[in-house]
Amino acid sequence: MSDLPADLFGEIDPPDRRLLMGPGPSNVHPRVLRAMSAAVLGQFDPEFTTTMNQVMALYRGVFQTTNKWTFMVDGTSRAAIEAAMVSVLAPGETVLVVSSGRFGLLLQEIGQRCGAKVEIVEAPWGEVVPMNAIKAAAERVRPRLIACVHGDTSTTMAQPLDGLGDVARGVGALSYVDATATLGGMDVAVDRWRADIVTAGLQKCMGGPPGIAPITISDRAAEHIFARRHVEKGIASAGDNAGPAPVIGSNYFDLAMVMDYWSDKRLNHHTEAASMLYAARECARIVLGEGLPKRIERHRLAGAAMAAGIEAMGLKVYGGAAHKMFNAVGVFIPEGVNGESLRKRMREEFEIEIGTSFGPLAGKIWRIGTMAGNARKHHVAHTLMALETALRREGFAAKASGVDAALGVYDGAKGD
Amino acid sequence: MSDLPADLFGEIDPPDRRLLMGPGPSNVHPRVLRAMSAAVLGQFDPEFTTTMNQVMALYRGVFQTTNKWTFMVDGTSRAAIEAAMVSVLAPGETVLVVSSGRFGLLLQEIGQRCGAKVEIVEAPWGEVVPMNAIKAAAERVRPRLIACVHGDTSTTMAQPLDGLGDVARGVGALSYVDATATLGGMDVAVDRWRADIVTAGLQKCMGGPPGIAPITISDRAAEHIFARRHVEKGIASAGDNAGPAPVIGSNYFDLAMVMDYWSDKRLNHHTEAASMLYAARECARIVLGEGLPKRIERHRLAGAAMAAGIEAMGLKVYGGAAHKMFNAVGVFIPEGVNGESLRKRMREEFEIEIGTSFGPLAGKIWRIGTMAGNARKHHVAHTLMALETALRREGFAAKASGVDAALGVYDGAKGD
Repeated sequence: MSDLPADLFGEIDPPDRRLLMGPGPSNVHPRVLRAMSAAVLGQFDPEFTTTMNQVMALYRGVFQTTNKWTFMVDGTSRAAIEAAMVSVLAPGETVLVVSSGRFGLLLQEIGQRCGAKVEIVEAPWGEVVPMNAIKAAAERVRPRLIACVHGDTSTTMAQPLDGLGDVARGVGALSYVDATATLGGMDVAVDRWRADIVTAGLQKCMGGPPGIAPITISDRAAEHIFARRHVEKGIASAGDNAGPAPVIGSNYFDLAMVMDYWSDKRLNHHTEAASMLYAARECARIVLGEGLPKRIERHRLAGAAMAAGIEAMGLKVYGGAAHKMFNAVGVFIPEGVNGESLRKRMREEFEIEIGTSFGPLAGKIWRIGTMAGNARKHHVAHTLMALETALRREGFAAKASGVDAALGVYDGAKGD
Repeated sequence: MSDLPADLFGEIDPPDRRLLMGPGPSNVHPRVLRAMSAAVLGQFDPEFTTTMNQVMALYRGVFQTTNKWTFMVDGTSRAAIEAAMVSVLAPGETVLVVSSGRFGLLLQEIGQRCGAKVEIVEAPWGEVVPMNAIKAAAERVRPRLIACVHGDTSTTMAQPLDGLGDVARGVGALSYVDATATLGGMDVAVDRWRADIVTAGLQKCMGGPPGIAPITISDRAAEHIFARRHVEKGIASAGDNAGPAPVIGSNYFDLAMVMDYWSDKRLNHHTEAASMLYAARECARIVLGEGLPKRIERHRLAGAAMAAGIEAMGLKVYGGAAHKMFNAVGVFIPEGVNGESLRKRMREEFEIEIGTSFGPLAGKIWRIGTMAGNARKHHVAHTLMALETALRREGFAAKASGVDAALGVYDGAKGD
C-alpha cells in the first residue's frame, strides 16, 4: 500500500458532460445510471428471479421475437458472441463467416479458437455481402453455423439479413447474428430474419454501460445446445444426464447451463451480475417506452443529418450509402490534417469524443456515432459546429456550413 | 410487445433492507452503489485509462502484491477462474486440482473443458488438504498448473496456502488460487504464498456487486501467457507476431490480449465494463481505507461470534473448527426442521437471507455468511435472534440464547 496516495485517488469523478460521439460506448441514460444503484439481492430470492423473468420479457420486445430463451450473458458484447459460437460449434464442425470488416474477422478468430473449420464469404471493407452469395457459399461448405455481423462499426456498414434463416435452414445450418452495434437503433428483426441466435450489448444504441450482453435463442438452436448439456459434478442431480453431443468447450459460456440458470430449474452456475441486470432492464424500458419504430427513425434521421453535414463541409463519407448504418458514419481524414490531433482538439476544447479506426482504415477515417440519446438534433449540431471549428484550427477550411446542411435534413423531416 | 404490461414492470425497486447473510452475494456498500452512477467514458479517453491504472494500483494493495499485472476480468468470479486456467493450460497439459468441495469440483470441470489432463489431490468435504499432500501429488504428476480454492463456501473451509508457490516452483509448475470468497475478509497474501495467479469477485467480502472479477498475475505466469499471444487479425500490427506456444482456447478469456488492453499498448479487445470498474474501484477504496488487518479481524470476530451463537443454541457447526472460513459457517439442520421452510420464514418474517447447500450437503446444512459490511455485531445479533425465533416457530427450542453467546464473544474481544 505504500505507493498509494492517502486519499486512495479520491472519489470517482469522471468528466460528466463529455459527449460520446464515437462508435461506442455512447452516453448512458441517467435513468440507467440510477437503476444500477438499486439494492443487490440474493440470486435465488423470489424478487430477484422475478426481475430476471421481467428482463427476459422486455428483451423479447427489444429483439422483436417470441423466443422463450431471451436472457443475458454476464460480460461485454464479445462474451455473448463467444458464448453463442462455442455453445453451437463442436471442434471440427464448419462455421461460415460472413465478413466485411473487423468484427467479421473477430467471428473468424472466435471460430478458430472453438476448434471449428472456418469458411469465409466476404466483401471488401465498405461493402456488404449479397444474400445470394451467402446462399451459394452455404450450399458449397454445408456449415453447422452461419455467422454474421449486422452493423460492423469498423466499416459503418449494415449487412442486410432478410432471408438469412431460410438460407441456413436450406443447408441444415443454424444462423448467428452479432447485433451489438444496432440493437435499439436499427431494425433488429430476429423473427423476421428467422435468425437462430442474436446477441448484442448495451453500450451502443441501447443507452447503457458495457458489461452485460443480451442474447436470444430459437427453440431449434436451444435444442441443439441442450444436446451438449453436461452439468457440473458439484451441482448435478440424478436427472441431469450428460447430453449425447460433445461437451461445450467453456464452462462460463456453456449456454446449456446458463439457460438452466435462467429457467425455473435455477441451476446454480454464475451469480447473476445484479447491477448490470438492473441496467439492462432500464435500457429496455426506455427503448420500448419510446417505441422501436420511433427510436429507429430517430437514429435514421440523426445519421442522415450527420452525413449531410459532413458532405456539405467538403469531407468525404466512407463506404456505400445504400448500406450505411444509421448510427455511425466514417469520414475520410482530409489531406494535411492529423487525425489524432483533430480528435484531441475535439475532446480538449469541446468535450466531444469522436472515434479512430482499425486495421486497413487506421489513420484514414474518423468514425462518428449518433447512438442512443445522442441521436438527436442538438448533439448532431454541436458536433458538426465543433468539428468545423476544430478543422479550421487544424488548417482545413470547410466548403460550406455542415450544421446548416444537417439542420436542413431535420427541417425537411420534421423530426428531432 | 403485446404481452408486456403498459408500465413495462415499473421502476426497479427491490427490497432495500434485506440482510444478505448467505454465502454471497452480501449487501453492497452504499458508496459502491453510488459509484456506479458516475458517467461512462470512452474506453481510450485519458481520464478513463487513468481510472484503469488507479484500479490496478488499488488492487495491488488489496491482493498484498507487487504484481504489475493486477487488473479486472469483465464477468462474474468464474469468468476469471476460466480466464486463468484457459490462458495457462494448453490441451493435454496437466492440472493438479486441490479439491475438497464444490468449487474444487468446478476447477476440475473447467480444467476438463480446457482439454487439460486433470489430476486431483483431495480431502473429504469439511476438511482441507495438507500442503505436504499437495507437494507429494505435485511431485508425482508434475503438473503445468496447481489449482486451489482458498475459501470454498460450499464447505465453509479455508485451505491453508502458505508454501504453495514453493511447491509449484519445486516441480516447475505455476500455481492458481480462487480467492473469490475470501478477498477482503481473510488474509489473501498473494506474494507471501508466492501464488502465480489469484482471482476473486466483489460480491463476498469486498462489499460490491457480482459482475467483475479482480485478478493478479506474477511476472513468470505473465511470461508463460504472453508466449501464447495471438493478436486478432482485425487489430494486429506488424510487431504483433504470434507467440511460439499454442493459441489460447478462448478469445474473451485470452489474458495475453486482456493484459495488452490494460497496458500502455491499449490493444482494443473488449470494451471495459466502466460502471463495474467504478464499483471495483470504490470497493478497494473502502477496504484499504478501513485497513486490511482491521477488516480481517472484524470478519474473524463476526464469524467466531456467529459460530458461538449457533452452538449455544444447541445446533451443530459443520466441519473442522481449525480451518473454518471467517466469513461463513455451516449449520446442521436439526432433526424435525424443514430447512427450506426455515429459510423462507427468515426471509418473509425478518427480511434475512441465509443460504442453502449443494451436492452432498443439500438439505443437510444451512450456510450463514458474515461478509463485508455484514460482518458486524448488530447483524450477527439480529440474525441469531431471528434464527432462534424462526426455529421456535418451526418447533425447535434453542438450548440457550445464541445472541448472548455471540455478544459474549464481542464483550471478550472489545471489537465491533
